[in-house]
Amino acid sequence: MAIQAALLGYGVVGSGVAEVLAENAAGIARNAGQPIELKYILCRSDRPGDPFSGRIVHDFSVIEADPEVEIVAECIGGSGMALEYVRRCLLAGKHVVTSNKELVASYGHELLAIAREKNVNFLFEGSVGGGIPIIRPITQCLTANELDEVYGIINGTTNYILTQMIVEGASFADALADAQRLGYAEADPTADIEGVDAGRKICILADLCFGRHISPELVRMRGISGVNARDVKYSRRVGYKIKLLGRALRTGPNTVTAYVEPHLISIRSLLSNVDGVMNGIVVRGNALGECMFYGAGAGKRPTASAVVADMIDCAKHRDARMYLNWDAPEPGHFTGPDDLISRWYVRTGASLAAVGGAFGNVRLINRESDPPDEYAFLSAPMSGHALRNCSRGMDIRSAFRVLD
Amino acid sequence: MAIQAALLGYGVVGSGVAEVLAENAAGIARNAGQPIELKYILCRSDRPGDPFSGRIVHDFSVIEADPEVEIVAECIGGSGMALEYVRRCLLAGKHVVTSNKELVASYGHELLAIAREKNVNFLFEGSVGGGIPIIRPITQCLTANELDEVYGIINGTTNYILTQMIVEGASFADALADAQRLGYAEADPTADIEGVDAGRKICILADLCFGRHISPELVRMRGISGVNARDVKYSRRVGYKIKLLGRALRTGPNTVTAYVEPHLISIRSLLSNVDGVMNGIVVRGNALGECMFYGAGAGKRPTASAVVADMIDCAKHRDARMYLNWDAPEPGHFTGPDDLISRWYVRTGASLAAVGGAFGNVRLINRESDPPDEYAFLSAPMSGHALRNCSRGMDIRSAFRVLD
Repeated sequence: MAIQAALLGYGVVGSGVAEVLAENAAGIARNAGQPIELKYILCRSDRPGDPFSGRIVHDFSVIEADPEVEIVAECIGGSGMALEYVRRCLLAGKHVVTSNKELVASYGHELLAIAREKNVNFLFEGSVGGGIPIIRPITQCLTANELDEVYGIINGTTNYILTQMIVEGASFADALADAQRLGYAEADPTADIEGVDAGRKICILADLCFGRHISPELVRMRGISGVNARDVKYSRRVGYKIKLLGRALRTGPNTVTAYVEPHLISIRSLLSNVDGVMNGIVVRGNALGECMFYGAGAGKRPTASAVVADMIDCAKHRDARMYLNWDAPEPGHFTGPDDLISRWYVRTGASLAAVGGAFGNVRLINRESDPPDEYAFLSAPMSGHALRNCSRGMDIRSAFRVLD
Repeated sequence: MAIQAALLGYGVVGSGVAEVLAENAAGIARNAGQPIELKYILCRSDRPGDPFSGRIVHDFSVIEADPEVEIVAECIGGSGMALEYVRRCLLAGKHVVTSNKELVASYGHELLAIAREKNVNFLFEGSVGGGIPIIRPITQCLTANELDEVYGIINGTTNYILTQMIVEGASFADALADAQRLGYAEADPTADIEGVDAGRKICILADLCFGRHISPELVRMRGISGVNARDVKYSRRVGYKIKLLGRALRTGPNTVTAYVEPHLISIRSLLSNVDGVMNGIVVRGNALGECMFYGAGAGKRPTASAVVADMIDCAKHRDARMYLNWDAPEPGHFTGPDDLISRWYVRTGASLAAVGGAFGNVRLINRESDPPDEYAFLSAPMSGHALRNCSRGMDIRSAFRVLD
């Protein structure tokens, strides 16, 4: 007996899911204990000639109303129709899997509550890090730890651009154009470039690690459009690479923070070697220390790898899986990142006297053939608030945290 | 209501398990759905003054016969007493968790069968990679893939020694003495140095990835005692580091191979940056591509992190977990690694004419202040058999595979 599934959406991820289900059907049936059959694909167009065109339907309610369909993979994206359909599928008693980070970051808590009530699964391994196993490792393998921090390179588009700037010396604009040409960046690259995509993912990781919902609206998201080729050069001279990190950590017994910002990370760290479109996620616990997960964080087949694994898990577990859960938001739980203390990299046009007066002792970065009107330094450890106070009225061109 | 557990063995790992259970008790109770109480610790001595000395028993049958004890963590090591006790615990209907790679590599298949029959769990997340999540990621997150290959740095002792040789230019003997002084290598370091420990771990990874038991007795294990400081230098000149890899891969539709050998790996690969006592494991699947798992592969608390996570999983799942399983061995399934084709690094005292005659075109490695009577080269791709044929009668001082 095969278990019946449906696909909502037939774009990049959806077609990847159909492809992997067909190509690896034998192994999937073995792992799931039974074959998984794709009964419907919800798609606006008919796709004549597509190998799966016979399964295409245009009306969601066909899927919703068919009691044979037990597993639904949402591949629409966003939180408009996707949210409505996922809710209705769960309410209809169907298992739902998705790689939609926007949906999970904003509505995960609510959708998990419906799933629990209906005793079905709502799984989203692909919503962070694409095909990299990360959700189950955190929620099943690291459960003996008090988790203190999670951070990483969780957006492939910006990592590709920064890698081009670091390795090829490209400007931000050229590297972005290159990424668009190769299909790594969208025509409107805002969500990637400005850190919004990474912000959603760090919310999901923080929810799982710290057990309480953090709304993406609270999270400061700062992307890489302010990173300059000169910042890359100055950083390298002191042994650092600039990487866009999502980062979440405990700031007290009952408080956490999360944010997205470019950071200087040491070239001696493993994470600094995560280049191109690849992702790397570091988790720190009090028993294990640090571990890292690395792989393709996006793309058709890597994302499908995670979505289909979730479908297999649904087939194996007809009752709700117990490992995914986090509490409702609580006032005071989330704090901004400005209290966090770190060293800062600063590029400035201010006079040495002004910098010395405001920042005290700093580590000046050696000058080579740099513009005569600027220099860069590493500050002593200070909070974001203190940095702002010190910088007041000064010509500050870049300021990024150093991850020590 | 708390769930009652017992510890067999109270050495490094056992005391780490007791420590983590006590220190993180609140979080563990939350994650397990109930507190986990350590009722007994099986230990030969009384350990007066130890915080857990009140729970020490000397007689295994006390634990075996107590129906209150539902979870047993085996921390004895080896496959003597540990095998007998694990068998008896499973037969008594208790869940068993372990980090004992010798036990799992040789008897995992048999013990899983008993666990299935008794509808209890036999879990061993800590048996490979210490605290690094690897068993569940392979068996739950990568299930949509046909897995083709798994390889990695899975022994911290030898990786520490090689890192000292690479970074500090130390000789093998000095680096080993250093590792022993720091507690990274045992007084009798044979199992680590000669690749036996890595061999057991690669068997477990291969069992999980390819679904069929591979006996460690079949697996060629070649350690690092033959790696010379000059090999390290020659390798660096062509952009490689020498790392001890456990490696298992499909060699045909129904055949696999597995082995442990020093390899040359490109300094541009992420794995080559896994240094010191750390471990890194790469898994390759046909949907995901490559992903890598990194962290502390041994040590008291990292290993306890995995063992306690397994105990939590047992507490949450009173029925046998379905994700762990592999088939009985089958003649012809395992093939030796000598058919595998790769380039080879060769250090030799033979004449250039002799090498040219036997190997054809090779890439000679630049000479610097090397001994006058030797040189090194990279061969064209060839099998292990072909290498042996070419080398016959020649003064070959080292020959390692290049991982391309």
